Amino acid sequence: MKDLSGLKVPEYEDMLAAHERIKPYIHRTPVLTSEYMNKLSGAELFFKCENFQKAGAFKVRGACNAVFGLSDAEAPRGVATHSSGNHALSLSYAAGRRGIPCHVVMPSTAPQAKKDAVRGYGGIITECEPSTSSREEVFARVEAETGAEFVHPYNDPRVIAGQGTCSREFMEQVEGLDAVIAPIGGGGMVSGTCLTLSHQAPHVEIYAAEPEQADDAYRSFKAGHIIADDAPDTVADGLKVPLKDLTWHFVSNHVTDILTASEQEIIDAMKLTWARMKIVMEPSCAVPLAVILKNPEVFRGKRVGVIVTGGNVDLDKLPWMKG
Amino acid sequence: MKDLSGLKVPEYEDMLAAHERIKPYIHRTPVLTSEYMNKLSGAELFFKCENFQKAGAFKVRGACNAVFGLSDAEAPRGVATHSSGNHALSLSYAAGRRGIPCHVVMPSTAPQAKKDAVRGYGGIITECEPSTSSREEVFARVEAETGAEFVHPYNDPRVIAGQGTCSREFMEQVEGLDAVIAPIGGGGMVSGTCLTLSHQAPHVEIYAAEPEQADDAYRSFKAGHIIADDAPDTVADGLKVPLKDLTWHFVSNHVTDILTASEQEIIDAMKLTWARMKIVMEPSCAVPLAVILKNPEVFRGKRVGVIVTGGNVDLDKLPWMKG
Repeated sequence: MKDLSGLKVPEYEDMLAAHERIKPYIHRTPVLTSEYMNKLSGAELFFKCENFQKAGAFKVRGACNAVFGLSDAEAPRGVATHSSGNHALSLSYAAGRRGIPCHVVMPSTAPQAKKDAVRGYGGIITECEPSTSSREEVFARVEAETGAEFVHPYNDPRVIAGQGTCSREFMEQVEGLDAVIAPIGGGGMVSGTCLTLSHQAPHVEIYAAEPEQADDAYRSFKAGHIIADDAPDTVADGLKVPLKDLTWHFVSNHVTDILTASEQEIIDAMKLTWARMKIVMEPSCAVPLAVILKNPEVFRGKRVGVIVTGGNVDLDKLPWMKG
Repeated sequence: MKDLSGLKVPEYEDMLAAHERIKPYIHRTPVLTSEYMNKLSGAELFFKCENFQKAGAFKVRGACNAVFGLSDAEAPRGVATHSSGNHALSLSYAAGRRGIPCHVVMPSTAPQAKKDAVRGYGGIITECEPSTSSREEVFARVEAETGAEFVHPYNDPRVIAGQGTCSREFMEQVEGLDAVIAPIGGGGMVSGTCLTLSHQAPHVEIYAAEPEQADDAYRSFKAGHIIADDAPDTVADGLKVPLKDLTWHFVSNHVTDILTASEQEIIDAMKLTWARMKIVMEPSCAVPLAVILKNPEVFRGKRVGVIVTGGNVDLDKLPWMKG
């Protein structure tokens, strides 16, 4: 870890340490290929299936690194977060494996299914009102009462070092990749990818894929400073969150380009993947394939690693179903 | 191949030959495990993912064996079948790889999506009226005009030898299996499983799983002779067809038991697999898991291989969706 004017930036060695630390608790996820997708894209695509990961998403890598990196003195007080998505599931899973509590602050209005899922992994939910002020107030109280360690979903060096282990595995599994592409929301996975590849394989291009309707990372990248959207709305609901200082550090320094796709293009790519590759993945994971198919000139002839980030989706409300 | 009073029965060596013959054209499909499913069942489950197979189902094994086993003199006349499901897709795929025609007789009333899928794999469709007499008449004409080789979806020694290669791979991939379970319709996959395991690992139990609402194999097994249902109706639409003489030979001689599940149990098991294992599979493939969860005393503590037979499903009409 190095200190850049107060910013604690994880280094390559932190990623290596993370990989050893989390190995017993995560899957080395498989890489799938599809002749059909290759023909369609003109590229050679390799899909790293983090939808098959523990707790259903890559986020368990960063969560495990944070949880198992706690000292024996710190650990018993547990961990805390205010995500209600995959990070909350992953942190609950990781805490459960270490046998420590995981506190999750969620709005009372969150879907029952999300609350059930967090509880299913052993998370302890404290409800707040659905406003930022209530969330911050309730979270501060939980933190003060429990002494739990706050683990941010992405703007945390431990989390980024953990996410970086995905690309490390990927490079071991597939030789000669020319590019890697991942969806971008807060930028945790993309930052981890940058952390690993910029050191280990600096010739590999790194693309980030973002919904047009939540294109704050794209606009930040073009502007050269962080621009946060007010209330982005997209089917790729894991990608609504903005970049923060630490993820911006990686994105601005190492990403080759950010490409965007429309809602319909995302839904089409998602359904196509389900239909042809027979895997269940979240709308967020379809954004990379959508931009590959939209920009064939960028990817044609290349060996492209596609990070399929997660598979936690509401099977009763698929985005291509009417009503 | 041995001749049993006129019945041409494939032997272990035919399966070995099939495996070498079809290797270039099929995937060696992965085996997935799930801690969640293990806890739920009390067994150790290994899922052989033929839903990731070429053309989306195990049937490509038998189809490739039939197609690539044709002599150079026979091959140019092509192959023919009257299935409208996975066998038609698989046979079209296999014929395409050999560069020979595949004729498929389908009722004019078959869903457009099925016709498109067959054509997508290069199959040549001849439509018939939706009656058995019309189908037989049209098929006889196509056969006479083209000289194409008829390949039955399951009651064919070449097809059964091909399906047997799945269990051979399975035994190489997972050590110490106590049992293997597969869905049963016409009995092609179960017969192939019997062919391979009865020779290679005769201590491994072989279970067949069938929908209650299409339980002709179950009733045949209990009665000791083939009973064909008149018009079975089940969500597991790949399993409506009856046993025939050759598959009955294997089922009656080598299957440990046939277990059944209700429609709701099948749908629940299907949705659970999608939700927890993140794989897209057909309703038919959910029948084994449904019977495992229904009969825990049969499987508890065992290492059980579950053959996930295919992933070709209409994503617009999922059986748990209302309407």
